[in-house]
Amino acid sequence: MGEFGLIKRVTAGFVGVASTLLGPGDDAAVVAVPDGRVVATTDLLVENRHFRRDWSTANDIGHKAAARNFADIAAMGAVPTALLLGFATPGDVELDWVDGLMAGLREECGEVGAAIIGGDVTAADVITLGVTALGDLQGRDPITLTGARPGDVVALAGKVGWAAAGFAVLGRGFRSPVQVVSAHRRPEPPYAEGPRAAELGATSMTDVSDGLVADLGHIADASGVRINLSAELLTIPAKLREVGAALNVDPLVWVFTGGDDYALVASFPKKTVLPEGWTVIGAVAEGEGVRVDGRRWPAGGHEHFR
Amino acid sequence: MGEFGLIKRVTAGFVGVASTLLGPGDDAAVVAVPDGRVVATTDLLVENRHFRRDWSTANDIGHKAAARNFADIAAMGAVPTALLLGFATPGDVELDWVDGLMAGLREECGEVGAAIIGGDVTAADVITLGVTALGDLQGRDPITLTGARPGDVVALAGKVGWAAAGFAVLGRGFRSPVQVVSAHRRPEPPYAEGPRAAELGATSMTDVSDGLVADLGHIADASGVRINLSAELLTIPAKLREVGAALNVDPLVWVFTGGDDYALVASFPKKTVLPEGWTVIGAVAEGEGVRVDGRRWPAGGHEHFR
Repeated sequence: MGEFGLIKRVTAGFVGVASTLLGPGDDAAVVAVPDGRVVATTDLLVENRHFRRDWSTANDIGHKAAARNFADIAAMGAVPTALLLGFATPGDVELDWVDGLMAGLREECGEVGAAIIGGDVTAADVITLGVTALGDLQGRDPITLTGARPGDVVALAGKVGWAAAGFAVLGRGFRSPVQVVSAHRRPEPPYAEGPRAAELGATSMTDVSDGLVADLGHIADASGVRINLSAELLTIPAKLREVGAALNVDPLVWVFTGGDDYALVASFPKKTVLPEGWTVIGAVAEGEGVRVDGRRWPAGGHEHFR
Repeated sequence: MGEFGLIKRVTAGFVGVASTLLGPGDDAAVVAVPDGRVVATTDLLVENRHFRRDWSTANDIGHKAAARNFADIAAMGAVPTALLLGFATPGDVELDWVDGLMAGLREECGEVGAAIIGGDVTAADVITLGVTALGDLQGRDPITLTGARPGDVVALAGKVGWAAAGFAVLGRGFRSPVQVVSAHRRPEPPYAEGPRAAELGATSMTDVSDGLVADLGHIADASGVRINLSAELLTIPAKLREVGAALNVDPLVWVFTGGDDYALVASFPKKTVLPEGWTVIGAVAEGEGVRVDGRRWPAGGHEHFR
């Protein structure tokens, strides 16, 4: 097929959005940024480390590759506008797989109103995706890791533990229950809650990609505070209890250390009236680190090098 | 060292520029875009396909990884402002190598006034770099591939053929002459000529990454024109003749098909007074494709999948 043939395949279904001033096919793309500030994040996903082709469809992998970057944009209080894809692949990749990947990326873009504006195709022994997402703050201040203050409440939007449970199920060779396996394959970050949290006055925010304790640890470190979580405020869903019982795993471990659901977690001034979709799970105090019911959580989030 | 240790190493030397509103360490970075439009491009570089650690130092590889993306930004008539790095590496990579890579990236950023605003570190069996560059049009219209018109002149800024000659030399096991080997290891794109060409009224522009004939072929296709090059307008430097004679290669092949020097080539209205730094090498006509002295060039640019 050749590089240029594959590029044509990859860019075939291009659909721009209002902000797409120049899409794929030129030296670079151009995106409208009426706010005067652009939010940018990038991720590398490597086959058999970040995804497995026997565990997830190409469509799932496309969805997830976009989702993890868009969740980072949402965690700043911004709205995703554009995605760039670096696609390295063995020359014998199946065309159907490429089409599925691109469809998944495009569909996830459609969820948030973003467009795939450009990319790069090259050869490699394993499939590697370099995904960059851009976002628009729409006049809001970015919500960083640094603003949590003692007295703030800590609240969560979205699911935690489901993707980790799905990963555990797949790792044992099972393919069900579908709810947890789907959560691993195709997370559904609560994108709209990012800008909403910013409008509510969130003092800090992040997405849960490494696990609740680990990611709140980044906020605690960056803000110079302690974050106290209360396990009883986190209802363990019946499905996770059920899967935990079947696999002989305490589901609290998935909830506190599981990444890849891309929930949003944020701190808010104490008197903030939080809307539906946000659940208070703890509070910010003087000190350092994260405590669950007053104790240090035994394990941190995952590190790829561990 | 672990992922977070490596991230600290990678972000240790962070230096922002005026447009860097939020640098590395958060969910995403924020860059000022006073123009209201951002230019974006991305590239994946895979060890032993795009670079070899035994042919180039880590510093060279960092320089080149940034340069190829900044050249794409310049080819739009824009000024690079920011770079994001996805860095996938085996866990046993030497710290000195990582430091050298980052120094090279930072130094090339310094050449153009950009900053490394963020990135991602992960594990892989081969070193893979996902580089994204952002740029600022500073009020100018982007110069695309589509605007070349019959009657325009075609002009070149920067070197062509030198990196290809260096690649040929290295491929034969030599390490000199230094001029061509350095051109391969550390190209020096004429960044400032991109915005300058835009101000001069360039009708189309691209950077020479795949070879002069191949890249002008993209302009010819996108603009729906023929591009006629004249070999006599392209002076073959004595050094390339010398290396060509030593390796028994016609240096014209390097000049017309060699990529990786990241020269800029553009079309301009016929009466444009081109400043020093730009050399007319041909003209735009009705028709399609690229001709060298009236004939189809035998070989196209390189394709990674060939």
